Amino acid sequence: MFEFNLDGQEQEARAGTLRLPHGNVLTPCFMPVGTHGAVRGLHPDEVMRAGAQIILGNTYHLHLRPGEEVVAAMGGLHQFASWPRPMLTDSGGFQVFSLSGMRRIDEDGVEFKSHIDGSLRRLTAERAMEIQWALGADVAMAFDHVAPGQASHDDAREAMERTLRWLVRCRERHIELTAADPDRQTLWPIVQGGVHADLRQRSLAGILDSGPWTGIAIGGLSVGEPKPVMHRVLEGLAPDLPKDRPRYLMGVGFPEDLIEGIARGVDLFDCVAATRNGRHGSAWTADGKVQVRGARLRLDQGPLDPECDCEACRRFSRGYLRHLFVAEEQLGQRLVSIHNVHFLIRLGSMAREQILKGTFHQWAGEWRRRYLSEASE
Amino acid sequence: MFEFNLDGQEQEARAGTLRLPHGNVLTPCFMPVGTHGAVRGLHPDEVMRAGAQIILGNTYHLHLRPGEEVVAAMGGLHQFASWPRPMLTDSGGFQVFSLSGMRRIDEDGVEFKSHIDGSLRRLTAERAMEIQWALGADVAMAFDHVAPGQASHDDAREAMERTLRWLVRCRERHIELTAADPDRQTLWPIVQGGVHADLRQRSLAGILDSGPWTGIAIGGLSVGEPKPVMHRVLEGLAPDLPKDRPRYLMGVGFPEDLIEGIARGVDLFDCVAATRNGRHGSAWTADGKVQVRGARLRLDQGPLDPECDCEACRRFSRGYLRHLFVAEEQLGQRLVSIHNVHFLIRLGSMAREQILKGTFHQWAGEWRRRYLSEASE
Repeated sequence: MFEFNLDGQEQEARAGTLRLPHGNVLTPCFMPVGTHGAVRGLHPDEVMRAGAQIILGNTYHLHLRPGEEVVAAMGGLHQFASWPRPMLTDSGGFQVFSLSGMRRIDEDGVEFKSHIDGSLRRLTAERAMEIQWALGADVAMAFDHVAPGQASHDDAREAMERTLRWLVRCRERHIELTAADPDRQTLWPIVQGGVHADLRQRSLAGILDSGPWTGIAIGGLSVGEPKPVMHRVLEGLAPDLPKDRPRYLMGVGFPEDLIEGIARGVDLFDCVAATRNGRHGSAWTADGKVQVRGARLRLDQGPLDPECDCEACRRFSRGYLRHLFVAEEQLGQRLVSIHNVHFLIRLGSMAREQILKGTFHQWAGEWRRRYLSEASE
Repeated sequence: MFEFNLDGQEQEARAGTLRLPHGNVLTPCFMPVGTHGAVRGLHPDEVMRAGAQIILGNTYHLHLRPGEEVVAAMGGLHQFASWPRPMLTDSGGFQVFSLSGMRRIDEDGVEFKSHIDGSLRRLTAERAMEIQWALGADVAMAFDHVAPGQASHDDAREAMERTLRWLVRCRERHIELTAADPDRQTLWPIVQGGVHADLRQRSLAGILDSGPWTGIAIGGLSVGEPKPVMHRVLEGLAPDLPKDRPRYLMGVGFPEDLIEGIARGVDLFDCVAATRNGRHGSAWTADGKVQVRGARLRLDQGPLDPECDCEACRRFSRGYLRHLFVAEEQLGQRLVSIHNVHFLIRLGSMAREQILKGTFHQWAGEWRRRYLSEASE
């Protein structure tokens, strides 16, 4: 269980198979985000038909509502949300530092105010493990101190070192929790260090020292830093990341980010942009973005993306989708969300195919030129 | 085409089959409302799987957005909205008098302000026919002057008489429009007259004089008058309504209204309550209403309605549905809407079965006792 097999490689780009308790995941792979135990606006069958092999759950949100004790009593997150395939939960670290009124951080953990009712809460390395164990995802993430994107070297170093110390506690607690059933959930560490190459190296070295691990995540990116900076961090880490472990770039991304991440050796991605953009009527196509509300779609009988085989594109016209957005019918938000999720999932599977054929970099160049061309609306 | 066959009868309650261009409709039948060319929050496949044989479109809304010329250019409402089964459009009369800033009414028609952009618009008997022909539903409705529920005898009489005069113009224009293709769309008149028995009789007599018709609607009810008043109007009309024509009670209703309407000879119903209540987390069950947000559902692993075979009840727990509402996930609104729509559709088909067996009135009594019992939340 939790094995990762490298099926093919082209320079840094990789194609692999990750074995998880609820099924296998072929990489590169985009994981839709199911914040509250549902991918926003979508039915689990729609997520499955969009091709999702694995989805995320957010520990912070599920801890606040409905509470992990409710999810556990209802049979765990898979049963609660009626999702039979693999799931991954984040640790709550990112949300605690970004969403909530963070009150106090010390060596033990973080005190924060719920963004829902203002109640005072506490999250620690141990609690993050206990909550994720109660939720029951296939993959749990270590509790990390996420420094802001613009953090100074000193601040980023402090957060990174604390994350390493917390990792040791996460691991200990996770081993205790899973002792009786070690094949049910694995724990992945998170590389931190902001935009500072030396800190990223030290973070990764510390993680590898406290291993072994079945996968490694890269956190604290795509938080406002310029894209080339993110690319440099990935390029800096790639040579030292174990080849035989999946690499998960957290909170990324947009279509072009997947292409750049895959080119730099990333296997797994997650991001809310697919559904968020879908709800706002912004659709991704091979020729770039389409604004679904645009007046020029009014009488357009063609599909949103002529090359797409998603449920929205196979069935509905651009003109109808535009009408749904203009009339503020939820069905429009749903259909464009399905399209965007499928678009990223298909991008992952197309990349995989190209890597296995050894043609990824050539294909990626053509993809970039077309996607970023002036034809884009 | 447009034939109605009476398959069975038990006192006033009727079971029939209505033949329409896009398929047959077994009655009694609830028709979900697709205001903007979509049943709110639902995918056409969900509406179909909920058992809908026919849905409504709103002429007023579709005229304003996207405009009937757009719908026609996109192949008509069936193709635009991807709905292959029968459709009925109302005439816009009800919305013009209830929703819009109605400016002026005269013998020719109504001047009103769009509730969307405040623009000044005009609807006449002829325009209502032209718009509905462009939309292309199987059944078009006559343009009527809908008086408020509390209208005096004088006001109700004036509106009813005007509706009769408009009916003659509707018919003339409809015959012209359908001349080349008379099997594509039929026109149904609307009985008006408020809560006044004599006016209702005169309205019906006027309609029958200007016939023949393939169906007859009863409008201006369920607009605030007490339920017994609505029942008396239905009882007053039943003996004089042609037995061999379908009867459509517009804008009704709630589950108990369907039972009462069917008992009084109604064949077709429509109402937005199923989806509106669904969006607000109010679910209908055989034991009455369930408030899905209720704290007592928190750990409830059972289905919303144990006797229901809808997609929501077969797959999701009450606890999960409650969570979706508390977390404000759209999927919750969708699932409870599906349930409510299916509940009304199933009520129609159960009633049909009972009528054909001659046990409707006994069954209806038991149904009422249970649905209206104290067990209801």
